[in-house]
Amino acid sequence: MSDLAAARSIDRFAALATADAPGQELRQAAGNIGNLMRGGRISGRAVDFSHGDVDAFAPAPGASDHFSEALAAGGRQAYTEYRGSADIRVELSEALAAYTGAPVAADSGTIITPGTQGALFLAVAALVNSGDKVAIVQPDYFANRKLVEFFGGHQLPVTMDYLRGSEEAGLDLAQLKAAFEAGARLFLFSNPNNPTGAVYSRREIHEIAQLAAAFDVTIVADQLYSRLLYTNQSYAHMRAAGLPEERVITIMGPSKTESLSGYRLGIAFGAPAVIERMERLQAIVSLRAAGYNQAVLRTWFREPAGWLDERIQAHQAIRDDLLDVFRAADLTTRTPQAGSYLFPTLPPLAVELGDFVRLLRRQADVIVTPGTEFGPCPCSIRLNFSQDHAAAVAAARRIVEMVHRYRR
Amino acid sequence: MSDLAAARSIDRFAALATADAPGQELRQAAGNIGNLMRGGRISGRAVDFSHGDVDAFAPAPGASDHFSEALAAGGRQAYTEYRGSADIRVELSEALAAYTGAPVAADSGTIITPGTQGALFLAVAALVNSGDKVAIVQPDYFANRKLVEFFGGHQLPVTMDYLRGSEEAGLDLAQLKAAFEAGARLFLFSNPNNPTGAVYSRREIHEIAQLAAAFDVTIVADQLYSRLLYTNQSYAHMRAAGLPEERVITIMGPSKTESLSGYRLGIAFGAPAVIERMERLQAIVSLRAAGYNQAVLRTWFREPAGWLDERIQAHQAIRDDLLDVFRAADLTTRTPQAGSYLFPTLPPLAVELGDFVRLLRRQADVIVTPGTEFGPCPCSIRLNFSQDHAAAVAAARRIVEMVHRYRR
Repeated sequence: MSDLAAARSIDRFAALATADAPGQELRQAAGNIGNLMRGGRISGRAVDFSHGDVDAFAPAPGASDHFSEALAAGGRQAYTEYRGSADIRVELSEALAAYTGAPVAADSGTIITPGTQGALFLAVAALVNSGDKVAIVQPDYFANRKLVEFFGGHQLPVTMDYLRGSEEAGLDLAQLKAAFEAGARLFLFSNPNNPTGAVYSRREIHEIAQLAAAFDVTIVADQLYSRLLYTNQSYAHMRAAGLPEERVITIMGPSKTESLSGYRLGIAFGAPAVIERMERLQAIVSLRAAGYNQAVLRTWFREPAGWLDERIQAHQAIRDDLLDVFRAADLTTRTPQAGSYLFPTLPPLAVELGDFVRLLRRQADVIVTPGTEFGPCPCSIRLNFSQDHAAAVAAARRIVEMVHRYRR
Repeated sequence: MSDLAAARSIDRFAALATADAPGQELRQAAGNIGNLMRGGRISGRAVDFSHGDVDAFAPAPGASDHFSEALAAGGRQAYTEYRGSADIRVELSEALAAYTGAPVAADSGTIITPGTQGALFLAVAALVNSGDKVAIVQPDYFANRKLVEFFGGHQLPVTMDYLRGSEEAGLDLAQLKAAFEAGARLFLFSNPNNPTGAVYSRREIHEIAQLAAAFDVTIVADQLYSRLLYTNQSYAHMRAAGLPEERVITIMGPSKTESLSGYRLGIAFGAPAVIERMERLQAIVSLRAAGYNQAVLRTWFREPAGWLDERIQAHQAIRDDLLDVFRAADLTTRTPQAGSYLFPTLPPLAVELGDFVRLLRRQADVIVTPGTEFGPCPCSIRLNFSQDHAAAVAAARRIVEMVHRYRR
């Protein structure tokens, strides 16, 4: 490797730093935070808000039965096409067409991937070349930015004023237009938004579609959390907003609402030409989603009557209690319309956000993800509140106490 | 995307063509081969030599029990570190150190991936930047070349004269030296070689190590098939050949010999700095190997006494019978020293290799992979003979009959 290439390569991996990413806390050295510490430990049951607790919310029923059937089926299920089992894609395409309100071509328009992360990676790899400009929302899922940077793309940030209200997500559409005018031909966003839980209004989705049509932009819509939609909320699917099929890739999976993350399953559907590229790439990235695991997708969108409603109600109850705790302490927090993320704003602290997060872990047994992972948000923390209800509320109170201790 | 970027991007994906890749035959249109056809169908039980038959050779015992235990363990197993469960990596590092004859650092020197394909992808992504030169053996596993091209690297081919004998793999060491002199700082190869089953001799491994040390080259050794080693063969591990730890990454997995491909599990071990980059990348590629599946690795290197020997003997018996069939028909074929691939040479045919492969499928119900996937080998086909013994022999006879029909 030349020195120049080596330097470039170091930069490329620096952009991928995972030390503060959710789930990687085991690899964080505690660092020298002893001298920052105020007060002692605050006792309480440990809560890891960096991801959902699949012990508190068990996987959707039937998953392990379908897995066992697939194992018994043997080679046919172990070695599917790279894009996944044709039978399962037919079943899913019907469910996803009904769910999103626009047709899904089972054969040419679907690919099963190792998790929605796998789908997102393949979609960005298929669409971003070195030097390309990509419109990215701030704040949004941290991997969006990292993926674009890894493939040498340039992100054009588009602000979301998520604290403005709760009828709209708060996307700055003028900035989005400016990004398209500046040359972005890809718009990548999560809806509901990760980390805030904001859902884009029908008007916002419509205007995004109008702009995308005017500028020939392709859209990758990460709708991972869209099924966990709270009472009286409505949801507009990007792919049903009138754009040509070739312009929209939608990404979903059963890892969150359905607690099937341990199986690593996702799906991308839409634009056949993009799906085709994604499959070519999957052939060298991981071959396919684990064959036996794919069968677990047969439970998806076929949960027992009432199962999803019950799950939504349980999460809504936790959400409301946590909002009460944070708002009583003046931590401004948007009400999530869907999903299980909360993104409270902290007051100015006497320590840096990264240190506060480490102190939270050390003194209060609470793990959260720093807002800086999602954009320029040095004053926020993200919580995945798909947790044991009582433990989550108690941990939120410990966060508030820690905020009081470290307030500037 | 600019026109230039679009053109580059089209090239990038053209290099990844999967139509002839193993396992993708379902997606091949039969094409216009009707007018080429000589004679009728040759009946017999269909055999798909593009991959091993996990129904003929069942997964290693205990896999599904470990999976079920992991499922019962819940969140702890669903959300491992990106590089995989720390406990399982400790167990594996002991087994792999004993197997390869050199220490393995469990914490810093191992990463569990979705299949060995996942490990190979991450290793190449971590080590190849646009413009880098990489030494690649011809013939060798097709993904090696595709991965290097995808990341903008240039392959410097190194010939393996695998028909020369069976004491050595036949690598042209002068060409390897020339590739290093020309600037290659990475050497990526499979051992046993895929598609030929050649195993590098101790002398070859030693000379590769000497050259790598002299030119500061990093080596990625794909040893996927190294456990399926036939009677009286010996195997030299690249990582035990005296290079600094930082210079060798070894890739293995239980997909082949152990028939656990349906779980998608692999491991890369060695150079900590490279493993660290691979983990950063895995965080955006697929997060982690499926959490529950990782537990299946607990069965690996712990098979019941005699299990591996029995598996080796069964494969050796099939290998010997197929070699007899091909050699009786004058199809020159190297005796594989390990693994379950055969790479017979066909005589000049009246049709192109791609058409012959399609005709084989249409007329003789036999699926093979064309030699052109592995390098400039328009006269060879690859068979994975991990199949039902009798069905494999009968299918090999049909291949011979088809060769006679289409001989020029």
